[in-house]
Amino acid sequence: MVRARRLEVLPGPRLPTLVWTGRGALEAYARSDDSWLRDRSLFVVTDRRVARLHGERLEALRQRAAKLRLYRVASGETAKSLQVAERLWRRLLRDGARRDSCLVAFGGGSVGDLAGFVASTLLRGITLLQLPTTLLAQVDAALGGKTAIDLPEAKNCVGTFYHPRAVIAEPALLGTLARREMASGLAEVIKIGAVLDARLFRRLERGLDAALGGDTETLSPVISAAQALKMTVVGSDPFESDSRRVLNFGHTLGHAIETVLGYGRFRHGEAVAYGMLFALRLAVLRGLDPAVERRITMLIRRLPLPPLPPMSAARLIAAISRDKKSDRGGVVWVLPTALGVARMDREVEPVLAKRELAAFLHSETIAV
Amino acid sequence: MVRARRLEVLPGPRLPTLVWTGRGALEAYARSDDSWLRDRSLFVVTDRRVARLHGERLEALRQRAAKLRLYRVASGETAKSLQVAERLWRRLLRDGARRDSCLVAFGGGSVGDLAGFVASTLLRGITLLQLPTTLLAQVDAALGGKTAIDLPEAKNCVGTFYHPRAVIAEPALLGTLARREMASGLAEVIKIGAVLDARLFRRLERGLDAALGGDTETLSPVISAAQALKMTVVGSDPFESDSRRVLNFGHTLGHAIETVLGYGRFRHGEAVAYGMLFALRLAVLRGLDPAVERRITMLIRRLPLPPLPPMSAARLIAAISRDKKSDRGGVVWVLPTALGVARMDREVEPVLAKRELAAFLHSETIAV
Repeated sequence: MVRARRLEVLPGPRLPTLVWTGRGALEAYARSDDSWLRDRSLFVVTDRRVARLHGERLEALRQRAAKLRLYRVASGETAKSLQVAERLWRRLLRDGARRDSCLVAFGGGSVGDLAGFVASTLLRGITLLQLPTTLLAQVDAALGGKTAIDLPEAKNCVGTFYHPRAVIAEPALLGTLARREMASGLAEVIKIGAVLDARLFRRLERGLDAALGGDTETLSPVISAAQALKMTVVGSDPFESDSRRVLNFGHTLGHAIETVLGYGRFRHGEAVAYGMLFALRLAVLRGLDPAVERRITMLIRRLPLPPLPPMSAARLIAAISRDKKSDRGGVVWVLPTALGVARMDREVEPVLAKRELAAFLHSETIAV
Repeated sequence: MVRARRLEVLPGPRLPTLVWTGRGALEAYARSDDSWLRDRSLFVVTDRRVARLHGERLEALRQRAAKLRLYRVASGETAKSLQVAERLWRRLLRDGARRDSCLVAFGGGSVGDLAGFVASTLLRGITLLQLPTTLLAQVDAALGGKTAIDLPEAKNCVGTFYHPRAVIAEPALLGTLARREMASGLAEVIKIGAVLDARLFRRLERGLDAALGGDTETLSPVISAAQALKMTVVGSDPFESDSRRVLNFGHTLGHAIETVLGYGRFRHGEAVAYGMLFALRLAVLRGLDPAVERRITMLIRRLPLPPLPPMSAARLIAAISRDKKSDRGGVVWVLPTALGVARMDREVEPVLAKRELAAFLHSETIAV
């Protein structure tokens, strides 16, 4: 009498994500998607700084859409709260958002995470457009469909996998970025090169200083190469259950540094840079050619990183084991095995990791 | 210099949904999925009534999982609030939920909606198991991947499409259902038969009274037929962008009745029953054979429905046009065209709908 039935529901994407990149990308997108935009309501979530610096860029969309409304949130991680999400849901509903409305995330990674989460859950999901204004968001955060808000218990602990209809990466927006923001974004680009593509890595060795200075000619091909690599990995593992984890190189310790320091003191890419430096030490212990380790380390060291404050290895290890990347199998380290190649390593002994971490902290800081 | 790249990300399901149905389904599921359950933490969300009546049924899962914890929420729609969702997220995190944990929704439609939403958003989605305890949830709410909470602005206005790993429908749980709950579930089954399957419809004509009385022999094949039909429709249109809307037969007015009356006065299926009766009147105006209309109407009238209180046609029409099923193309009515067949009709003149609604309300109630 008991029967098992197998339901094959394939919740595929509404549409594939389009990535527009290069100078004039926003205007080109607005023209290309004209018929879709024409009778659509656009709700733009942005932060005050971006609205002031780049607000007029939205004209390209405003001219084509039926209606455009702007919602300003605080800058940075503080906007990624449940309270702000609730305020946005309710405002959007009162302002007439419907299933065929479109939410535009216009800002850095925090705005993208927050707006993405709101778009993915309002009326069970409305169309999302990512318009990233930082290098980090253009090459990383805006791609891949991760959305999130924070709770007191943990950062990014509530969120969804939800792919935008389009990601529009205009390099001209990067002209107003502080050097520290640029370095943070470049740390993620180095990460992508180090674990996925030796060619991109070599390109960065040649052009890192020009890129740091905001040179668009250098940045544009680097951005589109990094996007293409990330897209390929995401496409093969949309829910980060397996191969996509390679993108977490430097993030195991990086997230722990952010947690222990408190968010806001370090840029995300800065914490990831230190995370990569440490992972490279582990990688050598696990068989990586020391010459490759030195080469990647040297490129990371060319970034203007703030010094690592004194931190306790025990607290960092505790934060790592609470991370959502850990499962009942323990901590997964992403370790390079050659230039442009890495693997997920579950076999690093916790005792070894802790001892090595203490040595690393000691070499990086004045006191541990 | 501007380049468009097309990213084909297919966020497919982690695993297909399995539906277990029939007597002993829970025990059979727990045995079959033993290896998966063995080192897993299970977090069960239920309401107080279900915990009291059926809590011991969880033993089948508890024996096999690494750990099982129970969270009780209020019964009915009140649990579907952001406050309750937040409390659950935070409790689950503090209690050690990880990506490989599993959330079990053990209750009716409200528990399923709430727990589904929490599971779909915690750590960007943990495994969800639906263990529906009402007929309505077994044949409808627990299948199809819709999750939701309510805001003051609207019911179900925040949610996700997120498919459970398994739906386990044990008919023995229905033994404690009030007759009104049974009627509410049967209204949804009549709906499925009326728009998708004349054979199921005829089966209900023969067995409705036995089903209302809770006869398991009658209910079991009806439940599995309704599940299979719903699964097929959902599989072909997971995001309800097109063909799946046929399942909204009776829901256009039904949801408006719930909104205007305030939730809790009518069971969902009762409101849908009146919604179907009205849609059938429109269907005749749009060409349905009056004999078919009478046949479906007669079956619906055999349900013990509470009388429709006096309501204003204008308020109902306003609620319909605010519904998330409406878009810039206007209101979509699902109208039968024959027994077991229906179509989406966007051409019903609003003036006609309103006049017909006033007449319907007049015939159903003492005063309008």
